Amino acid sequence: MLIKNGWVLTNRVEKKDVAIEGNTITELGKSLSGSEYIDASNHLVMPGLVNTHTHLAMTLLRGYADDVPLHEWLTEYIWPREMKLTPEDCYYGNLLGIVEMIRSGTTCFHDMYFHPDQAVKAVRDSGMRAVISCSLAEFGNRAHALDVLKTGLQFMKTIQNEPRIDTSFGPHSPLTCSPEYLLTVQDHARKLNKIVHIHLHEAADWIEKFSKSHGQTPIECLESSGFLGENVCAAHVVHATDKELDILKTHGVKVLHCPSSNLKLANGIAPVAKMIKKGVCVALGTDGAASNNTLDLFAEMRLMALLQKLHDPSAMTSGTAVKIATENGGSALKWNAGRIEKGFLADIILVDLKKACMTPGHDVLSNVVYAANSSAVDTVIIDGRIVMENGVLKTLHEDEIIEKAQEHAYDLVNR
Amino acid sequence: MLIKNGWVLTNRVEKKDVAIEGNTITELGKSLSGSEYIDASNHLVMPGLVNTHTHLAMTLLRGYADDVPLHEWLTEYIWPREMKLTPEDCYYGNLLGIVEMIRSGTTCFHDMYFHPDQAVKAVRDSGMRAVISCSLAEFGNRAHALDVLKTGLQFMKTIQNEPRIDTSFGPHSPLTCSPEYLLTVQDHARKLNKIVHIHLHEAADWIEKFSKSHGQTPIECLESSGFLGENVCAAHVVHATDKELDILKTHGVKVLHCPSSNLKLANGIAPVAKMIKKGVCVALGTDGAASNNTLDLFAEMRLMALLQKLHDPSAMTSGTAVKIATENGGSALKWNAGRIEKGFLADIILVDLKKACMTPGHDVLSNVVYAANSSAVDTVIIDGRIVMENGVLKTLHEDEIIEKAQEHAYDLVNR
Repeated sequence: MLIKNGWVLTNRVEKKDVAIEGNTITELGKSLSGSEYIDASNHLVMPGLVNTHTHLAMTLLRGYADDVPLHEWLTEYIWPREMKLTPEDCYYGNLLGIVEMIRSGTTCFHDMYFHPDQAVKAVRDSGMRAVISCSLAEFGNRAHALDVLKTGLQFMKTIQNEPRIDTSFGPHSPLTCSPEYLLTVQDHARKLNKIVHIHLHEAADWIEKFSKSHGQTPIECLESSGFLGENVCAAHVVHATDKELDILKTHGVKVLHCPSSNLKLANGIAPVAKMIKKGVCVALGTDGAASNNTLDLFAEMRLMALLQKLHDPSAMTSGTAVKIATENGGSALKWNAGRIEKGFLADIILVDLKKACMTPGHDVLSNVVYAANSSAVDTVIIDGRIVMENGVLKTLHEDEIIEKAQEHAYDLVNR
Repeated sequence: MLIKNGWVLTNRVEKKDVAIEGNTITELGKSLSGSEYIDASNHLVMPGLVNTHTHLAMTLLRGYADDVPLHEWLTEYIWPREMKLTPEDCYYGNLLGIVEMIRSGTTCFHDMYFHPDQAVKAVRDSGMRAVISCSLAEFGNRAHALDVLKTGLQFMKTIQNEPRIDTSFGPHSPLTCSPEYLLTVQDHARKLNKIVHIHLHEAADWIEKFSKSHGQTPIECLESSGFLGENVCAAHVVHATDKELDILKTHGVKVLHCPSSNLKLANGIAPVAKMIKKGVCVALGTDGAASNNTLDLFAEMRLMALLQKLHDPSAMTSGTAVKIATENGGSALKWNAGRIEKGFLADIILVDLKKACMTPGHDVLSNVVYAANSSAVDTVIIDGRIVMENGVLKTLHEDEIIEKAQEHAYDLVNR
């Protein structure tokens, strides 16, 4: 397959053709020839966005509980509902989220939620790319947590060498998992060459609580224990001292930045510009739609860049914002994705440059970050396969999914 | 005309029909009858959004200068280009902005820019509603500024009793206009019953500079001089002490809040929740697309609400955010618009509730503020006339405008 005549985003934006064989980008150049092609005239051809932190089936709880702080939000609203989730709820919640993500140019996500087998099913059915975590939490009950880990390991065995799907370990956080349990999980992850997906330094009062009982902050404690490493994907990291950022950098920890959720739950603004300056790999995520409340990474990119400019207008360029949302996401999730480059996976989106919001084209990357409405994405390719073409989903029955998800969502909150 | 079977946003969201005669909402009720109607099944019927602070023709400079602070942005990038603006540039810049605004559900705007006659022309041609300011600035040359005021008064005389268009006085700011000149302008405004549209307390260093030379902050100084009043629309007010907010409240000054621009130019976060608590009328604006870089008020509503939650998740409800973007805008601009209510102007938008981003519908207002992509707006009615129907613009040739605007924009920056 060829993508012809588009403005291709590599290290710069230039008119080129992109050749794809199977699921891989095989060539970039002028006037490539081939029989099957997409005409990308007047389109930006860019890497698909990578959503590195989601709880996708929570899309069923979008708008269910606004205006409350993290602890109350979890204990009084979210957890009571989650206890009643069925596998089928999760399947439709996942599909609803995938529809929204494809429409807004996301081609890969990293999920941590209940019934991960249902996320896998939705990913298989949709043609999406994903890393699905098995959720783990200890809550003071080590024996039970080890059982859950065992189940998780069995789940992971069922997803091996499968196209577009990988698995990761998802221990919830240092607040719900002891350092010893986390280390056990990390040992397995290292043996199996898997990512560990964890919430870290999200709410200031949680850090304080932990520090009081452990005599160290979570980041310090996880360093001492030997947990940190380049396979650790730490969601949030809203609060971190210079010393803690240096620790993350030293161990190659990836930060999964979720600016909307951090504001909405009043957790704060993560020091992303400083992280980047220190050489920490930062990727972007939406968090669950119950605390965002969208899965639109264009909105998230814009918010991230604007927030970093609060005190310094030059704190983040649009080029850096795009890199965080694409290439860094690929690195964090260990997929060879997030760049339009020979040998990379063909996860590609076409953005219509003839929309009012993309006009004029003085600076296409600036338009992508600050001006684009994600509905300007009209074609989405994942793993070399077209999953949306000119605004029409090719792998999913959108209307049916929306209807089913609505039914399950209403039933869930009234159950 | 009838809007039938929609979920209508009044003080709550309920299924109703809306009857329109001429340019006015004449009735709300169940099962109203009429021959000509819009089927609003599965749609939210809500007031159009009001953009209370724009420099619309600047849309030609979208993406032209990112990552620099306000003063440098103005003096090194924007002003040199603006000196070369032609009336035709402005006409197409205005039309481009209007296309983007209609598409994202804005039905009324308040503009301050060069060649205001071209904004008027674009408003006439598009069916938009607007208040067009005549731009005034003194820059130490009183005689010249009084000449410009005279020209402004003549311009305003040409726009009288015209449907959908009103005019206002637009003295740039206390930094470029002396207190005496501002008072002269305000005297005219009071006589003619017009709004005064001014930038106020936007950048901290500007406030400091003013305070040093005047012995008072701009807000204090404008109170002493007798300038402040309920016809004053003050854009930005990013920085204000409690005492200054009390002054704004006492005099009924309207604050035009522009959160994206305030972040992008590193001016800060305006204390909107506190303003609302004190009873100050706050309305919403995008500022020019050169410092935002969109004209999408859905994005602006979301950003406003999220920013207010930085320290307190309950600081702003979605209901308040919607009121600020609709009803308060109508009040600030003195149009009887911004509510779906008998006797109000028929400025109405239909939002498709069957989009993935609007599903599920646990809380429709929350979805509007936090989850909606503005492309969910599919039908827009201004002054009782359909200007967009099912995503198709009825009054403007969108492709031609985008092409022309692109040409003018490129020519402008290379002139």
